[in-house]
Amino acid sequence: MTMTATRTDETVQIRSLIEDWAEAVRACDLDRIMAAYAPDVLAYDAIAKLQFKGAQAYREHWQACAAMCPGPMIFEVHDLAIEAGEDIAFGHYLVRCGAVGEDGKQDTGYMRATFCCRKRGGRWLIVHEHFSAPFDPESGKALLRLEP
Amino acid sequence: MTMTATRTDETVQIRSLIEDWAEAVRACDLDRIMAAYAPDVLAYDAIAKLQFKGAQAYREHWQACAAMCPGPMIFEVHDLAIEAGEDIAFGHYLVRCGAVGEDGKQDTGYMRATFCCRKRGGRWLIVHEHFSAPFDPESGKALLRLEP
Repeated sequence: MTMTATRTDETVQIRSLIEDWAEAVRACDLDRIMAAYAPDVLAYDAIAKLQFKGAQAYREHWQACAAMCPGPMIFEVHDLAIEAGEDIAFGHYLVRCGAVGEDGKQDTGYMRATFCCRKRGGRWLIVHEHFSAPFDPESGKALLRLEP
Repeated sequence: MTMTATRTDETVQIRSLIEDWAEAVRACDLDRIMAAYAPDVLAYDAIAKLQFKGAQAYREHWQACAAMCPGPMIFEVHDLAIEAGEDIAFGHYLVRCGAVGEDGKQDTGYMRATFCCRKRGGRWLIVHEHFSAPFDPESGKALLRLEP
């Protein structure tokens, strides 16, 4: 197998990891969400804290986030790009996320996501993740209505 | 050379890339800052826009940021972690950044940074970067006073 073929295989595996995980996010399926992360994941999430160290801390945060979202969760991955080596990979995407309000209208905005993976025991896992919205330096407010 | 030795070498090279670049940021030396980036860098910065595509767009943004910062720039890299393969690497750190006010007092806060590198022509370059501050979902305000 050439390096190019190996890399393509790895990219396909990682794309599938992210797609499965995003489906789990939309379903608010905590066990399936957490299956994508390494036990020692270090996460920088868009809200609340500077960082989350380890899968347990991150799981509790995901649980709190799921509780904030009463209706069906909108979580659309856009512009997914992946760069993969033999056992190290990274990628990034924009995510249109939000919820459907009681009036049936979508309340969504775009955020940015970066993920970093290691292959361990033949399986890719997310060891680092970074979600965010940029903020306006004048008002200090998160910019939640930007479009790509 | 064993894989471990190669990896250690790569990690040393990337640490040096980040340290040189951080020194350039503190010096507001735009050419030296930009030397760390690939021409096709895709950046998610902490402020203003969802993304910056390419070194030219990112340079203009860095220039605007430097103009916002009148006094000596504080930019301290903390908890730098790096994972490197042969030609793909990633890392993350917390950065205490801000400025010294006219009263001589430091006005700083911690942000999060993730960087992703490719080795091209024997040299590591940043191909993706993500800076951010988390925000408070209730107030919508960026949380600029968090401590690790």
